[in-house]
Amino acid sequence: MQTAWKDYQKQNEQRFLDEMLELLRIPSVSAKSEHKDDMRRCAELVRQRLLDSGCDRADVMETAGHPVVYGEKIIDPAKPTVLVYGHYDVQPADPLELWHSGPFEPVIKDGKVFARGSADDKGQFYMHVKALETMVKTGSLETNIKFLIEGEEEVGSPNLADFVRQNKALLKADVILISDSSMISMENPSLDIGVRGLSYIEVEVTGPNRDLHSGTYGGAVANPITILAKMIASLHDQNNHISIPGFYDDVVEATKAERELMGRAPFDEDDYKQDLGVNELWGENGFTTNERTGIRPTLEVNGIWGGYTGEGAKTVLPSKATAKISARLVPNQDSRKITDLLLAHFKKIAPASVTVHAFEHHGGEPYMTPIDSKGYQAAAKAIQTTFGKEPVPVRGGGSIPICSILEKELGIKIVFMGFGLDNDNLHSPNEKYNLENYYKGIETIPYFHKFFAQS
Amino acid sequence: MQTAWKDYQKQNEQRFLDEMLELLRIPSVSAKSEHKDDMRRCAELVRQRLLDSGCDRADVMETAGHPVVYGEKIIDPAKPTVLVYGHYDVQPADPLELWHSGPFEPVIKDGKVFARGSADDKGQFYMHVKALETMVKTGSLETNIKFLIEGEEEVGSPNLADFVRQNKALLKADVILISDSSMISMENPSLDIGVRGLSYIEVEVTGPNRDLHSGTYGGAVANPITILAKMIASLHDQNNHISIPGFYDDVVEATKAERELMGRAPFDEDDYKQDLGVNELWGENGFTTNERTGIRPTLEVNGIWGGYTGEGAKTVLPSKATAKISARLVPNQDSRKITDLLLAHFKKIAPASVTVHAFEHHGGEPYMTPIDSKGYQAAAKAIQTTFGKEPVPVRGGGSIPICSILEKELGIKIVFMGFGLDNDNLHSPNEKYNLENYYKGIETIPYFHKFFAQS
Repeated sequence: MQTAWKDYQKQNEQRFLDEMLELLRIPSVSAKSEHKDDMRRCAELVRQRLLDSGCDRADVMETAGHPVVYGEKIIDPAKPTVLVYGHYDVQPADPLELWHSGPFEPVIKDGKVFARGSADDKGQFYMHVKALETMVKTGSLETNIKFLIEGEEEVGSPNLADFVRQNKALLKADVILISDSSMISMENPSLDIGVRGLSYIEVEVTGPNRDLHSGTYGGAVANPITILAKMIASLHDQNNHISIPGFYDDVVEATKAERELMGRAPFDEDDYKQDLGVNELWGENGFTTNERTGIRPTLEVNGIWGGYTGEGAKTVLPSKATAKISARLVPNQDSRKITDLLLAHFKKIAPASVTVHAFEHHGGEPYMTPIDSKGYQAAAKAIQTTFGKEPVPVRGGGSIPICSILEKELGIKIVFMGFGLDNDNLHSPNEKYNLENYYKGIETIPYFHKFFAQS
Repeated sequence: MQTAWKDYQKQNEQRFLDEMLELLRIPSVSAKSEHKDDMRRCAELVRQRLLDSGCDRADVMETAGHPVVYGEKIIDPAKPTVLVYGHYDVQPADPLELWHSGPFEPVIKDGKVFARGSADDKGQFYMHVKALETMVKTGSLETNIKFLIEGEEEVGSPNLADFVRQNKALLKADVILISDSSMISMENPSLDIGVRGLSYIEVEVTGPNRDLHSGTYGGAVANPITILAKMIASLHDQNNHISIPGFYDDVVEATKAERELMGRAPFDEDDYKQDLGVNELWGENGFTTNERTGIRPTLEVNGIWGGYTGEGAKTVLPSKATAKISARLVPNQDSRKITDLLLAHFKKIAPASVTVHAFEHHGGEPYMTPIDSKGYQAAAKAIQTTFGKEPVPVRGGGSIPICSILEKELGIKIVFMGFGLDNDNLHSPNEKYNLENYYKGIETIPYFHKFFAQS
């Protein structure tokens, strides 16, 4: 069978790529209302491709926000069912001026596809669609497959929980398989065993009721930029420990044994620094880089703006300054609790000379997958088969907000089998996905189904 | 003569206004290169109006940047000469969405002209043009008048010093008269006796060489927004005293007598707070509001930006964060010295995990005018005549960077006779100039010439 899979994939290599590029050309940016029609166009294309690739049915299903695409191929209700989760929405492409080519005009260079969504997550979920086609066309599908491809992952999946609750029977499965993460490298394959949770808020600080002349009023009225900067500066202490009272209350500290295991994952600090172009790393004292991004919660400012940001100089004391701020959470932090803590904290620390309006964007819970589950074991065996090396279990720094809800509502475990790389420029200009990884993913996924069916 | 002036001004009231509006319709934003042609168009219109209003000659004269408009009416070389300085360039109009009407589509409402440049400084320098016309047409001009109307005041007059040095003979005069400031109110007329200096810099903080996914890298790499916020937060101590070593070294402290005199200027803190819509004022401990904006140097962030600033949420750890920062200076601070101090300070306090690129926008020296000079006395008498009340001498918070250079190169004193109000929204959306103030200025200026000629 392995030869049949490989032959089929080789013969259809170019088409598999062309179909991915077609998806990438649609600017399906969920955060921006101007792309509402693009979102639907993208969902329709996903539906069509699911049908073309072997699904018995595929539907664009409504939610209160962007639609969900559901598809399924049921070979035998008695066989195990794998639910593939992915998302067809992408992050905004800004800042556009830093892209070397159009974010929605995919370019192939040095064996990489450059486009927004190439790795996160269009290129990755589409591997599962082409793996399905491979198994169907070679008559070797051993599991039922369901697809849940949503359009709001990048804005925190605000409507997916309701959708899942309302469609529990439809989504019934034995395991959830997600390719929306990365591995250490092609030489050191890894499987994520966790994702961090997320609390994302926005803080708007208002000083005077209008922009003021900084000469006439400077020195006599609180400058909201200065106040916001002071508030942001107070969020980390000198050890880069988050200094919001109560923030760490529910954190389950990793054991010494767990930290020792994590320490074995290959990591070269010089390579890491060189790749990022920094002279020194930065982070919470007392933890390694992998620990800082894996087992520790963090707090980052994702955006800030206020006053004059154009060419040249303008002597203004602005009325407002705003920041987008998000925390990554680890077990057993609760996103709702941390979001409320953050919102209250900013209001509390604001001086009386300004007013603070703080509100929530979205959140999600951290999630851990057990290494001894059937799903994880099937994924590890699949990787072992195609990479020739046992994958290292690692804790990923990113977030997939819906994970904890999927497990709770459907009562099944999630397996993360990501084929991206950390340097894929996710959420950044020049996002890319290596063709080698795309094809390796399509090659590996059928083994997951095979091993899961046999387990 | 007074009756003749008043009659002439009454008869031409509407035209005086229409001509001002014509000037306001040209978006002469010196900071933005896209307005280069508008700048020249505006200069040409000023030149034409100077000729129409009685100048013997008027020229658009080249500089390395935007041109200067020079005009003159020489009645008798033996008579005293007044050099009127003003500027035809304006501040950028952003943020555009906060304007109630187009910044370059003047609207008259409740006796006020709303437009960028209405008070700063087109409406104000144009009072002098119409005052000239009044005196010429009524045969009552008793001084020579020269006009120096520049196009780069809002970007720090980078080319005017050279222009003045190269045209000393042309600009020879006995006093410099400037209307580019405000008075306390129409009921409490005041004359500025000083302007603050300025040091304006931009600080760009770079962390990683590209925008990063805040989940994958958050917590392990310095976030340039956080670092910039910490640097900004460190600029003021808990008494809102500027905490940059050496910043206050050259400040000449006001004497107790001077501060007592300043304290007599009418000021209602409740009105001030209500006008600005703030619950509490803010500023350096130990000083009153008027002292904070008059005799004390200040440091304000005029703009900040970094990361994602669009709709919704983006989980990015940005590569760069930038701030525009300016200090207002008082005697005897030196703009060059303070600018160098600021640039060096930001480089010095930056942690090794980021790189800082700090550069200068522009600067200017503080300036004080002596209250016993012939020019100040003529201005005070003119105000007394038309307002029926002796003006209060006050120290203005704004800056006119070229003042100290004009005095040094031409060897003469400057008189500030501004007719604006603090709430004219200078440098802000909805800049306005009251028609009452415009006409009162045109009415008052001829008296200055009369009294100066007689003194």
